[in-house]
Amino acid sequence: MSILERNVTGAVAHLQMNAPERLNALSDEMLEALQSEFDSLQNDRSIRAVILSGTGKAFCAGHDLKQMTAGRQAEDGGKAYFADLFNRCARMMQAVQSLPQPVIAQVHGIATAAGCQLVASCDMAVAAEGTKFGVNGVNIGLFCSTPMVALSRNIPRKHAFEMLTTGTFIDADRAQTLGLVNRVVPHDTLAAQTQELAEVIAAKLGAAVKIGKEAFYNQLQMPLDEAYAYTGEVMVENMLYRDTEEGIAAFLEKRDPNWTQ
Amino acid sequence: MSILERNVTGAVAHLQMNAPERLNALSDEMLEALQSEFDSLQNDRSIRAVILSGTGKAFCAGHDLKQMTAGRQAEDGGKAYFADLFNRCARMMQAVQSLPQPVIAQVHGIATAAGCQLVASCDMAVAAEGTKFGVNGVNIGLFCSTPMVALSRNIPRKHAFEMLTTGTFIDADRAQTLGLVNRVVPHDTLAAQTQELAEVIAAKLGAAVKIGKEAFYNQLQMPLDEAYAYTGEVMVENMLYRDTEEGIAAFLEKRDPNWTQ
Amino acid sequence: MSILERNVTGAVAHLQMNAPERLNALSDEMLEALQSEFDSLQNDRSIRAVILSGTGKAFCAGHDLKQMTAGRQAEDGGKAYFADLFNRCARMMQAVQSLPQPVIAQVHGIATAAGCQLVASCDMAVAAEGTKFGVNGVNIGLFCSTPMVALSRNIPRKHAFEMLTTGTFIDADRAQTLGLVNRVVPHDTLAAQTQELAEVIAAKLGAAVKIGKEAFYNQLQMPLDEAYAYTGEVMVENMLYRDTEEGIAAFLEKRDPNWTQ
Repeated sequence: MSILERNVTGAVAHLQMNAPERLNALSDEMLEALQSEFDSLQNDRSIRAVILSGTGKAFCAGHDLKQMTAGRQAEDGGKAYFADLFNRCARMMQAVQSLPQPVIAQVHGIATAAGCQLVASCDMAVAAEGTKFGVNGVNIGLFCSTPMVALSRNIPRKHAFEMLTTGTFIDADRAQTLGLVNRVVPHDTLAAQTQELAEVIAAKLGAAVKIGKEAFYNQLQMPLDEAYAYTGEVMVENMLYRDTEEGIAAFLEKRDPNWTQ
Repeated sequence: MSILERNVTGAVAHLQMNAPERLNALSDEMLEALQSEFDSLQNDRSIRAVILSGTGKAFCAGHDLKQMTAGRQAEDGGKAYFADLFNRCARMMQAVQSLPQPVIAQVHGIATAAGCQLVASCDMAVAAEGTKFGVNGVNIGLFCSTPMVALSRNIPRKHAFEMLTTGTFIDADRAQTLGLVNRVVPHDTLAAQTQELAEVIAAKLGAAVKIGKEAFYNQLQMPLDEAYAYTGEVMVENMLYRDTEEGIAAFLEKRDPNWTQ
Repeated sequence: MSILERNVTGAVAHLQMNAPERLNALSDEMLEALQSEFDSLQNDRSIRAVILSGTGKAFCAGHDLKQMTAGRQAEDGGKAYFADLFNRCARMMQAVQSLPQPVIAQVHGIATAAGCQLVASCDMAVAAEGTKFGVNGVNIGLFCSTPMVALSRNIPRKHAFEMLTTGTFIDADRAQTLGLVNRVVPHDTLAAQTQELAEVIAAKLGAAVKIGKEAFYNQLQMPLDEAYAYTGEVMVENMLYRDTEEGIAAFLEKRDPNWTQ
């Protein structure tokens, strides 16, 4: 068994973190495996949607504290290792957004610290009832500063601040209310319902989803007028796709589109 | 009947899109009519609040796909037409924010794609129970890239992403929870309750609402310190209005203000 | 009795605005007292969390309108005084965020205009059931332009716009749903529950909370890649604290940390 299992069903790739004895911690090996899969998916047009989940009791419990502690043995007390580690981790988190395919976190058990960041970094998230979310590094003296980048772009700031400074957990329903997850489902239907959501997206025109996802995150960081100038160009490009012409024609003729992609 | 009916009650202008056979699609004619009314309202001090609604079964179903398809006949496959169309549409959406008067969307039936964008672009929205909202262009291969500019500035990002990539609709209650609409009311009181909200605003000091609305959207795009420096200047200007002096005096003397405006 | 009472319990400083006959209005004296306490707390490592509350019927009713009206007697009609007043007020609001210690608003009665801004400017807020929140300056012809800077960074924009232009109040439960307050509690447990929340935070490693709070507000204003580069550096610095090394070691060894701070 690999540390990151990849299974493909139709146009949906399912990546499953597989280090249950370490609660799927984001060790050097796990980070490398995730980055490698994302790099490979970047240009894989056969895949239209991605699911990310974890085996065992937890989705992901964040960084690997044993490995980080071992890193302190270096002459610089770990400084260079930590800098490199957080760079690699941030690169992986941003790779989720850079993928052309939507990525859905399938979350169960607990998602803490960088594990909670991973949920926040995914485009969507489906959580099993009873899942706990926390950015609780503050409890051991390590404020979740990188996780908060993703978290504070998902939920209102006062609620993010409370989670970060008190280290308390929120449950799945609260996470849904605040905007951290899209749906909460019974645990025994979690895999099926996440797969179903992925298949809905995988059935769309891949080129439209690709151009749209990229534009989504780009425009969020622009002032309004720039965002409109930019997305206007995206819409023109999208309109000129042969398959979009067919999609619109099919709609007007009340028939199913006959897409080449 | 015009494609855009204008009725004025007191200081409230009610614009009603009137192309029910096309679900009030944002055709070239509708865009022009809306832009023209907004241009005219820009300097009309007799109007203090604006309501935007639609006749027939839907508030607005987005762009006019038949007209867009006809646009493909040009030598460039429609490229210049589409670029111009999205520019005109974005200009109209931004004109809503640029108006000195608050604009309230009075929404019923469905509001899809650029129709949903129009709701998101209004300053406030009142929706009839049962109204459906969607940015479902992805279903025909045309990602709602310009609508998402407005939508993603109204609701949390994961929920916006889900609507955009799955094409599914949300109902009025969900739209209210997420922040896309202010109030949900029974359909038979929709017009009355929207009018009532408009009249509450129309009874305020117009100059204060004007300077405040402009500052609202400007400061949203600034870093905190700039936002405070800018709105501090706005507050000083507002304090120096003769009518504001009277408003404060009236409050301290526990009487109604005697405003000149 | 001072206009701003300071009581310290352990590592928690409790600042209580004490001008109940003026509903704790932000007069020149109150602004100066608040600024002075925040300046003093800035370098006070014995304090780990701050509570801000008000005596009497209200938390805070905003600016002191009598004092502002008196300011109009100057030769310039008050222009210089108002400019200075809004600068001092904005400086005090931003000082809350600049403090190394988390600041919790303990809110009861009403919080209006700049009083509502003060709640929005605190890092967290606990409200008594029945508390009313409003930015109702528009009712007297003075749009709450500076309060909206803080408010619109706490709650969704359409709801902020409605409060600002209609002058209507929302209750504590609504404020919690929208993101303006963290918790709503019975009035007779308000002080105890706020103190409890402050003590939870005060028990954390102060250096970690300090570096994290500063990073929280800084990264919110950055594009994603910059935010990650910046917080990555913050995490490295945090990792190199001796007390953080101890905190992680204690966690791995399943014992309590033995912190020097």
